[in-house]
Amino acid sequence: MNKINIKEKFGLFSDHWSPKIVGELNGQAVKLAKVQGEFVWHNHENEDELFYIIRGTLKIEFEDKTIELNEGEMLIVPKGVEHRPIAEEEVWLLLFEPMSTKHTGAVESELTVENYEYI
Amino acid sequence: MNKINIKEKFGLFSDHWSPKIVGELNGQAVKLAKVQGEFVWHNHENEDELFYIIRGTLKIEFEDKTIELNEGEMLIVPKGVEHRPIAEEEVWLLLFEPMSTKHTGAVESELTVENYEYI
Repeated sequence: MNKINIKEKFGLFSDHWSPKIVGELNGQAVKLAKVQGEFVWHNHENEDELFYIIRGTLKIEFEDKTIELNEGEMLIVPKGVEHRPIAEEEVWLLLFEPMSTKHTGAVESELTVENYEYI
Repeated sequence: MNKINIKEKFGLFSDHWSPKIVGELNGQAVKLAKVQGEFVWHNHENEDELFYIIRGTLKIEFEDKTIELNEGEMLIVPKGVEHRPIAEEEVWLLLFEPMSTKHTGAVESELTVENYEYI
């Protein structure tokens, strides 16, 4: 049982769109990611997903609207809802989601990560 | 689907040791709490619990050690582990835990909350 310093953890990696696991509880993962640019449209059939912004501004496009999230704001995207994150400048994100969640959902893209790294 | 501004939510209440639910996903709750003083010793038999510090310094006593958490730090307390949070000055906390979790565990105290308020 060790404490997790979020900003220190962000200092350990620099790759984009490649979430790292920093904690696990009740079958859920706490992941950190740095993102920049446009992600792929996708949904998670069975999993709700929480985005919490540690640094920067993230836009999440939905079929009918776009939501802009700034530092200290979070959004829960319900399962099945198509979405696409976009970061004009680098954004630091904290994600809460089931351990089983793949960040591109059922979409296979060059951004798909098969095994998430623990840091 | 609405974004949640954490600091705005903290502006909506001032009572201590009374977590409020701000989001729900995959059977888990995101709760916010303001705490000050000493809590009761307790554990959660079946639930891991995540503490994330938004403001202030929280000490968590365990049977064999004390862990001090500052702003931007988190700790996952595994199920079954006895613990007691202590805040010398007011602390703002984000908690992530199953919807079923009671913050005093099986301990009934004057601090026990039967139904968590949504804000």
